[in-house]
Amino acid sequence: MATKLKTAVLGATGYSGLELTRILLRHSRLEKPLLLRRPADNGGASDLADVFPALSGNGGYPLHTLSWPAMKEQGVQLLFLATPHQTSRSVVPQAMAEGLRVIDLSGAWRLKKEQHRAIYNFHDADSATAAEFTEKAVYGLPELNADRVANAALVANPGCYATSVILALAPLLKAGIVDRRRGIVSDSKSGVSGAGKEPTAKTHFVSVADNLSAYSLFTHRHVGEMVEQLGLTAQELIFTPHLLPIPRGILSTIYVHLNRKMAPAGVESCLRTFYSSKRWVRIFQTPTLPQVNFSLHTNYCDLGFCLADDGQRVVLISCLDNLLKGAAGQAVQNMNLMYGWPEDEGLQ
Amino acid sequence: MATKLKTAVLGATGYSGLELTRILLRHSRLEKPLLLRRPADNGGASDLADVFPALSGNGGYPLHTLSWPAMKEQGVQLLFLATPHQTSRSVVPQAMAEGLRVIDLSGAWRLKKEQHRAIYNFHDADSATAAEFTEKAVYGLPELNADRVANAALVANPGCYATSVILALAPLLKAGIVDRRRGIVSDSKSGVSGAGKEPTAKTHFVSVADNLSAYSLFTHRHVGEMVEQLGLTAQELIFTPHLLPIPRGILSTIYVHLNRKMAPAGVESCLRTFYSSKRWVRIFQTPTLPQVNFSLHTNYCDLGFCLADDGQRVVLISCLDNLLKGAAGQAVQNMNLMYGWPEDEGLQ
Amino acid sequence: MATKLKTAVLGATGYSGLELTRILLRHSRLEKPLLLRRPADNGGASDLADVFPALSGNGGYPLHTLSWPAMKEQGVQLLFLATPHQTSRSVVPQAMAEGLRVIDLSGAWRLKKEQHRAIYNFHDADSATAAEFTEKAVYGLPELNADRVANAALVANPGCYATSVILALAPLLKAGIVDRRRGIVSDSKSGVSGAGKEPTAKTHFVSVADNLSAYSLFTHRHVGEMVEQLGLTAQELIFTPHLLPIPRGILSTIYVHLNRKMAPAGVESCLRTFYSSKRWVRIFQTPTLPQVNFSLHTNYCDLGFCLADDGQRVVLISCLDNLLKGAAGQAVQNMNLMYGWPEDEGLQ
Amino acid sequence: MATKLKTAVLGATGYSGLELTRILLRHSRLEKPLLLRRPADNGGASDLADVFPALSGNGGYPLHTLSWPAMKEQGVQLLFLATPHQTSRSVVPQAMAEGLRVIDLSGAWRLKKEQHRAIYNFHDADSATAAEFTEKAVYGLPELNADRVANAALVANPGCYATSVILALAPLLKAGIVDRRRGIVSDSKSGVSGAGKEPTAKTHFVSVADNLSAYSLFTHRHVGEMVEQLGLTAQELIFTPHLLPIPRGILSTIYVHLNRKMAPAGVESCLRTFYSSKRWVRIFQTPTLPQVNFSLHTNYCDLGFCLADDGQRVVLISCLDNLLKGAAGQAVQNMNLMYGWPEDEGLQ
Repeated sequence: MATKLKTAVLGATGYSGLELTRILLRHSRLEKPLLLRRPADNGGASDLADVFPALSGNGGYPLHTLSWPAMKEQGVQLLFLATPHQTSRSVVPQAMAEGLRVIDLSGAWRLKKEQHRAIYNFHDADSATAAEFTEKAVYGLPELNADRVANAALVANPGCYATSVILALAPLLKAGIVDRRRGIVSDSKSGVSGAGKEPTAKTHFVSVADNLSAYSLFTHRHVGEMVEQLGLTAQELIFTPHLLPIPRGILSTIYVHLNRKMAPAGVESCLRTFYSSKRWVRIFQTPTLPQVNFSLHTNYCDLGFCLADDGQRVVLISCLDNLLKGAAGQAVQNMNLMYGWPEDEGLQ
Repeated sequence: MATKLKTAVLGATGYSGLELTRILLRHSRLEKPLLLRRPADNGGASDLADVFPALSGNGGYPLHTLSWPAMKEQGVQLLFLATPHQTSRSVVPQAMAEGLRVIDLSGAWRLKKEQHRAIYNFHDADSATAAEFTEKAVYGLPELNADRVANAALVANPGCYATSVILALAPLLKAGIVDRRRGIVSDSKSGVSGAGKEPTAKTHFVSVADNLSAYSLFTHRHVGEMVEQLGLTAQELIFTPHLLPIPRGILSTIYVHLNRKMAPAGVESCLRTFYSSKRWVRIFQTPTLPQVNFSLHTNYCDLGFCLADDGQRVVLISCLDNLLKGAAGQAVQNMNLMYGWPEDEGLQ
Repeated sequence: MATKLKTAVLGATGYSGLELTRILLRHSRLEKPLLLRRPADNGGASDLADVFPALSGNGGYPLHTLSWPAMKEQGVQLLFLATPHQTSRSVVPQAMAEGLRVIDLSGAWRLKKEQHRAIYNFHDADSATAAEFTEKAVYGLPELNADRVANAALVANPGCYATSVILALAPLLKAGIVDRRRGIVSDSKSGVSGAGKEPTAKTHFVSVADNLSAYSLFTHRHVGEMVEQLGLTAQELIFTPHLLPIPRGILSTIYVHLNRKMAPAGVESCLRTFYSSKRWVRIFQTPTLPQVNFSLHTNYCDLGFCLADDGQRVVLISCLDNLLKGAAGQAVQNMNLMYGWPEDEGLQ
Repeated sequence: MATKLKTAVLGATGYSGLELTRILLRHSRLEKPLLLRRPADNGGASDLADVFPALSGNGGYPLHTLSWPAMKEQGVQLLFLATPHQTSRSVVPQAMAEGLRVIDLSGAWRLKKEQHRAIYNFHDADSATAAEFTEKAVYGLPELNADRVANAALVANPGCYATSVILALAPLLKAGIVDRRRGIVSDSKSGVSGAGKEPTAKTHFVSVADNLSAYSLFTHRHVGEMVEQLGLTAQELIFTPHLLPIPRGILSTIYVHLNRKMAPAGVESCLRTFYSSKRWVRIFQTPTLPQVNFSLHTNYCDLGFCLADDGQRVVLISCLDNLLKGAAGQAVQNMNLMYGWPEDEGLQ
């Protein structure tokens, strides 16, 4: 068997970082990954099991301080970033200079258009370099960009909501059957892990339990990804996220008008054809619709739909696990593409 | 003080029936209500505390078998029906003949148009009488129909989802500022008590917890109420209900295009003016939006909105407690109107 | 009608403070209470509805900075403290000097014995005064200490767990039928609001949901209250609290050995006799046992039990709402006793 | 590689049956298992994905009717029963006659003593045969009975609560350091999947959410297993199960008095020594305690403890996933022992 790949994870102590680490540990093509604290966490825990006691009893998961020479010495070739956006923005130029390939789970490199990027308010030490990597970064949605991911040095792993919405809409939009002038609505709902591990008034159990709330109306940062990848104008898509009283999972209910009358079989065929060879998208057979818990703890994005009697109004349902297909699972799927491995290695 | 009113509740053992009973027991204008089992439950519990042990220790809540002579003897003047649709359809003609006023929490008498009623598949013993009461029944949404409710013999208490959607949309539609050709979407989410007390695979804890699911796409029974009350065609409204992993509460996220550019203050003014003298609708000040738990255990319908930068796309958020403003609370509000009492009597 | 009482609430922005404020607002014997920020929150919200938007739309709930002259000017006679322990410890001497009566919801004045108090590590500016008020403070468990509460200047409102355990055990212990040498176990479980409103890693939704955890084994601060009020030694009681994935409510499962064989009727009679005239304790009839949600949103403490076939081993179940009978409701019950009002005024 | 084993699962449509099927499908030593409907479900779904849509899109999982000739023809050698107790009681004699080895997840064959078995009220067609298999059946708790499991024809897979309690207590009891006369208490809490998939009033979401309830006090069926395996008398153990508002997971809080003073290190050493070579029991280092979600979706039983200052009172915390270590995972662990495979095959 070929030599195994050495990877590192910067930010293993967040929710996505933990899921990622778990997958990397059981991935047959990898050495045990090097786990690095976020720069802001230095002085913190020295073992990942101290942060997540669920890992106890399986031996150690030592956490190290980021050090480029140490990475080189250990032969790290691929670096995962499960870090805040600005941290990723700062770390990537150095990582590139070190000759590493990078899969970044943050929003730092996902957006090509300045108008979309503005919402992040990035501070770049060297704006020319930042512009260069912004240009080079490949948006890591494997179902759309597999070829470019395979050869990428820097993969910008998509946002969880964005993955959910783009995968549902891409087949219909690429087929040219959507009446875009009528506008598209994605009413999306996410579990709380999507809001990150930081304790806030918003993530307090008592605030979330027995509740549902909408937030970031017309202003969510993932909208930029959606419109860029789908070729839409900002006017053509309304995206409303909601906070669900569940730990993980996303369901997007997406409203589309077709520009012609179709039968349900036509719509289903459009979806099935688009994803015919794709391992991690499941199309549900009408009238069964995906539910959040069908794809939990898997790397699937589940798609279903219902067509109105008029043959023109479609409601799409798109579900995924925000920590897997919406983050860590998709990152591993991208790694598999980058190294020519089966797309489901480590993800079954 | 004037003589107190004697009421009866048929179906006190369901979720709405229990909430209703609790309110009636503390309502200052009422005698202790006569509690009646649903006909299908005869032979069942003899006291409501046997069904809901939470009521224990406050004295008895005897459950009786429905008997018209007994009701007459006890001086019952107002009958609440918290019964399945078909039961209400069967019971009302007799109740009317007995000279009772009726507030029916079921869907039996809400719909004027046969095309909407068809979905219920009612079986009427006497179709002429049924048609007569269908005609006479007043749709008991107090914020829209207060005058007619006041004089009604038969009030059809609105559906929970319908209340949520109609109250959000009525101000904009009546003001004529909605571009109806663009279509209206209501993406609504409800707690599990809305599905009733019957144990089913769908209401099993393990099916609902950590989950979210959409259901009844394009086919929910409350759509008829919405379009009849709002004067819409079925084509103009898409309604998608979802089952939330919470016991109670509804949040509707409603998407509307305006037929002119407006400022947020204009939209807010439209809502505030419409509900200026209404006790049980709260308009939230932008950018604060209602959340499900703000109105839980109250009779409020909470409304908020967000207007896109283009001044034409509006997202409305409408929240209420499905067992109160969506059922029992609204029934009491209707009773208060019917007897000329303050609209919040028993509901504070 | 007599002049209404003017009260103030220091710390209205916490969970208990909010519940308390809600009750005081609808209490028939009171003027609208004066709402005061915690000293640490000055500069914070100016209206309680900004902190709890659920209060929106009912007029204003202005929050003021603590000022003794302003309280005097407004005629405040009774001050509720819903403050951290040390804050209460600091504020009470001044309040007493101002001639106010005080009901303190914190743990500052509950414990008579230094050995129990040590766990709080109080810092008193004037230790003689502190000792004096420690001595004078009445432990405000109305079912045990009604007479002393009635005349108290300073009421130390009990802890939520302590209320749950003491009310269950007092009847059996006072009847002398417990074999204390065998040891008593209280395995108690609480909703998350008991941990306070501060966002922490422990109260993050993702940490609590789908989980259960035990904490503070052998070291919880409420044990001191339990043993002092019940006349036990620390060795005779093991208390284990657990964090439940629910917003509110406590269930204690309590294990006791009797020192003689008894029949279930004898145990039930012991409980019923002890609480025969008590409004806010409900004894459930065997074999029905209380559940957490029976007493939610009420001021009841619900008690039930099961006796083993051997007639000596008893399991008691004790349930209450930690924010009501375990905090704000009990505080109002104490106020009612202090002013000679019906014990359920404002609490029905 | 050796020929793969052919297995069958009777009752794949229940919660445990589904978990079991999922593990068997990915187990490297097995052919695809033959999935059989419970006899009572004949005429039901023809594919497991119809019952659990989460399985969709991975190819078919056909469900068959139980047929002994068909099993023989397909070369089935090992039969798993995920069936109601009485069904297992009826099916086992035939399976034994067919020469199959059986792992039964029900309670049918766990109890050796008639006095404990009485609670099940089994009806045996042939009482001599039933007595024979009752005698031959091996209680399949691998950490205690590995050798006997290895050679068993019929393995009675333990109850979920029983596994949790026995694994926590066995080390201390076998070491002879427990003062049994003081009595042992296990206060246990389980998620709702432990109550099975049948929709009932008790498993309705609205009954369980925001709630906690104790049940089956002194009468739970798993007590027989606990006392038989631990060598206790019924008087020496009180077991109280509670229903938690979570889908899965068990936490037992267990109270023990030692018959001598010990240091924490001594207790920890007792636990660690007992489980030193056991793959699926994790001992947590004081003061860290297991929580329910640490072992979810794993086959671990997690143990931790706290010792009082007096060195004699111990509280043990035992957590596991009721569907894995408490059912399907343990069944696979037993299979691994029966066929000489690594104990964690299929379970990592």
